[in-house]
Amino acid sequence: MSAVHDYIDANLPRFREELFEFLRIPSVSARSEHRQDIRLAAEWLAAKMREAGLTVAIEATPGHPIVVGEWRGAGEGAPTVLIYGHYDVQPPEPLELWTSPPFEPTLRDGRIYARGSVDDKGQLYLHIKAIEAHLRTAGRLPVNVVVVAEGEEEVGSEHLIPFIEAHAARLKADAIVISDTTMVGAGIPTISASLRGIAYFELHVEGPSTDLHSGAYGGAVVNPAVALARILASLHDDEGRITIEGFYDDVRVDPEYRRELARVPFDEAKFREETGAPALGGEAGFSTVERLWIRPTCDVNGLLSGYTGEGSKTVLPARAMAKVSFRLVPDQDPRRVERLFREHVERVAPAGVRVAVRALHGGDPWRARLGGPLYEAAARALEKAFGRAPVYAGEGGSIPIVPAFERVLGAPVLLMGFGLPGENAHAPDEWMSLENFEKGTHAAAALLAELAG
Amino acid sequence: MSAVHDYIDANLPRFREELFEFLRIPSVSARSEHRQDIRLAAEWLAAKMREAGLTVAIEATPGHPIVVGEWRGAGEGAPTVLIYGHYDVQPPEPLELWTSPPFEPTLRDGRIYARGSVDDKGQLYLHIKAIEAHLRTAGRLPVNVVVVAEGEEEVGSEHLIPFIEAHAARLKADAIVISDTTMVGAGIPTISASLRGIAYFELHVEGPSTDLHSGAYGGAVVNPAVALARILASLHDDEGRITIEGFYDDVRVDPEYRRELARVPFDEAKFREETGAPALGGEAGFSTVERLWIRPTCDVNGLLSGYTGEGSKTVLPARAMAKVSFRLVPDQDPRRVERLFREHVERVAPAGVRVAVRALHGGDPWRARLGGPLYEAAARALEKAFGRAPVYAGEGGSIPIVPAFERVLGAPVLLMGFGLPGENAHAPDEWMSLENFEKGTHAAAALLAELAG
Repeated sequence: MSAVHDYIDANLPRFREELFEFLRIPSVSARSEHRQDIRLAAEWLAAKMREAGLTVAIEATPGHPIVVGEWRGAGEGAPTVLIYGHYDVQPPEPLELWTSPPFEPTLRDGRIYARGSVDDKGQLYLHIKAIEAHLRTAGRLPVNVVVVAEGEEEVGSEHLIPFIEAHAARLKADAIVISDTTMVGAGIPTISASLRGIAYFELHVEGPSTDLHSGAYGGAVVNPAVALARILASLHDDEGRITIEGFYDDVRVDPEYRRELARVPFDEAKFREETGAPALGGEAGFSTVERLWIRPTCDVNGLLSGYTGEGSKTVLPARAMAKVSFRLVPDQDPRRVERLFREHVERVAPAGVRVAVRALHGGDPWRARLGGPLYEAAARALEKAFGRAPVYAGEGGSIPIVPAFERVLGAPVLLMGFGLPGENAHAPDEWMSLENFEKGTHAAAALLAELAG
Repeated sequence: MSAVHDYIDANLPRFREELFEFLRIPSVSARSEHRQDIRLAAEWLAAKMREAGLTVAIEATPGHPIVVGEWRGAGEGAPTVLIYGHYDVQPPEPLELWTSPPFEPTLRDGRIYARGSVDDKGQLYLHIKAIEAHLRTAGRLPVNVVVVAEGEEEVGSEHLIPFIEAHAARLKADAIVISDTTMVGAGIPTISASLRGIAYFELHVEGPSTDLHSGAYGGAVVNPAVALARILASLHDDEGRITIEGFYDDVRVDPEYRRELARVPFDEAKFREETGAPALGGEAGFSTVERLWIRPTCDVNGLLSGYTGEGSKTVLPARAMAKVSFRLVPDQDPRRVERLFREHVERVAPAGVRVAVRALHGGDPWRARLGGPLYEAAARALEKAFGRAPVYAGEGGSIPIVPAFERVLGAPVLLMGFGLPGENAHAPDEWMSLENFEKGTHAAAALLAELAG
């Protein structure tokens, strides 16, 4: 294995140059004017995967193509690893807030600044380079490998799961590895061991058939904006607990995981400072880390009613709308949460208004099946690359493809990410730590060896 | 006096034709492209006032002109009546909702349909015709008269009060008569005996310095939209009472006026149907009429936060805003309500957000000084014209110039309106009852006689 790692060290400057080439392609999946750039990025990536030694196909979908690279030389007795990543990026706007242009990658203070650097081109490309290192030095990989790189992650991965389902036999794997998450701090290798699910709704409150004059009608006609505020306020108690009946029934408290999270070196003061909020808050009885990773939430994502322009308009609005979403934890089910939310809203809505709940979007929560060969191999690989054992952290967000991968392929997912807090993944001045790109390449190479057992 | 009323009856068709001419001028004060039409309306009105026998001046203001007509022939010992009205109108949009064009007055089913018919050209012009009837038959008026017609009522009467203040000696009067309000029902002459005041605010709640990802931060960062909903929900109790400490301290309950209002024939079922709301509601322990006219309110006029477009966006908003207004009753003071509202918001705002209250607009409540020569004369005049004694109703809205007139000129205001429920004053298909235009002219003529004592 030392030959592999020596190869990586010797070729790091070239790897970085290649990543910069990849980052120069503005493969913004959300904008139709970038369709050619998306195509270009898929072809560039396919070429590099071929150079590394994989057999590559660019698979068409009704949307952007999926690049699939395979190496089956380890034989049927050896495990197969599926590595997933994405080559599309978020839109770069607002451009004026970038220190250097988003598609001109720039190294400053040990950080690679560019749109897509950490999300996810850098984290995907380090796996390709790890594969290359094995194939160029040993002429083979320790395990069978399938790389799946999609071009629609930033717009919802609409065609990925149908593709996986359609090609389940070809993509059959013993483990799925994804590098698209964040370490809890510099130098602290991190395995993301849980994701929250989501249940997202629009809540509509309707009263009078048109906007009324608040002088002529106010006091005797129930105000939909007031009714909406009262319904929203009824969703939490004064301790920050969600008051929907039955909401916590399926929340599985895992004392061992809670102890694991208590060991995560989480800098709360820095986190607060990053947000700009005057103080943190949340559900009583839980730490910030627990509130973020293992507790469900209810957030209002949007509010709209009546007159919102400049100055005063004395309107009693006909309707009011809120976007309301819940983050879910195992074993909560977005479909059951929908039912409970509807029941709650019906129960608390005042007479004089009509309420309607529209479900927009749901995703299951996920918790890693810690232990077993995949997680043991990952722990050893990360310790080799970073010089210390990994911590197990949660992620507050939702990655719906993770539970979907497990469901369709029946194999465990490992979230081994190399981002860092403050990396601006969806904001101007996105960056990836150059050190993490390099150590990540070593970790990815080591993981393949460790998985061979 | 019968000669005056005979003259009116004989000339009603001409009065109506003249009103139609007045209504054809699109004197929309809110639109600069109608500046010439405003000027034309002022000149047309001035000419008609001169023809009626008044001495007329078109007084310039920094905005639209004020037309002042005077007749002082009753002598210094006789009372002086100031009649106020306005010749500007609301914008007619949306045009496609008008059955006949807004500036082509059309008589249908006994209603004059046109923008400005009831608000306020018809109600102003009937006073001019009443004056004409006296001067053409008796050669004199029973009292001294000053007519003040402004062209900025629909845009806030910015220059009226400064004008009245600057000309207080010239405009000195014993009574002020305004016809710009509504009768409680057809055939029921109505004196509006109270107006609610107003205190209008913007409430801002700020949390994180930028919008955050609700997955990555939700649960540990206080959500400004949730905080706003909780603050707004704290403004009422479950009985619809406003919970701001001290808010009701200055509410003067007048049992006699309450008994008067209980006699008003108010059709609650029809009122609810008009609003389109599934049910009425409001403060426990009060009737609909009381909730509308003699109880203060707190309404949310607008809400805005986070993402309000189509679909789902998982944002934890940086800020949330509400427009919040209170309707006030005697003796509440908008300045004191501002202080109490600020104190309440500061007290209930959760840690983790900053709150700011911006006062946008205030107006005093008003209650008529019932009784005395003015109200006794009005009751007799209305009974003569309509064949029954007037009822005393409240108005839920605010007309800031009413308390201002009383303050500056030191004379009581009489609100003797000839509108009807459903007249669409600020909406498409505005109309005025032809019968009310005619009976209103008789009532206005009778009032001048009754005021002479």
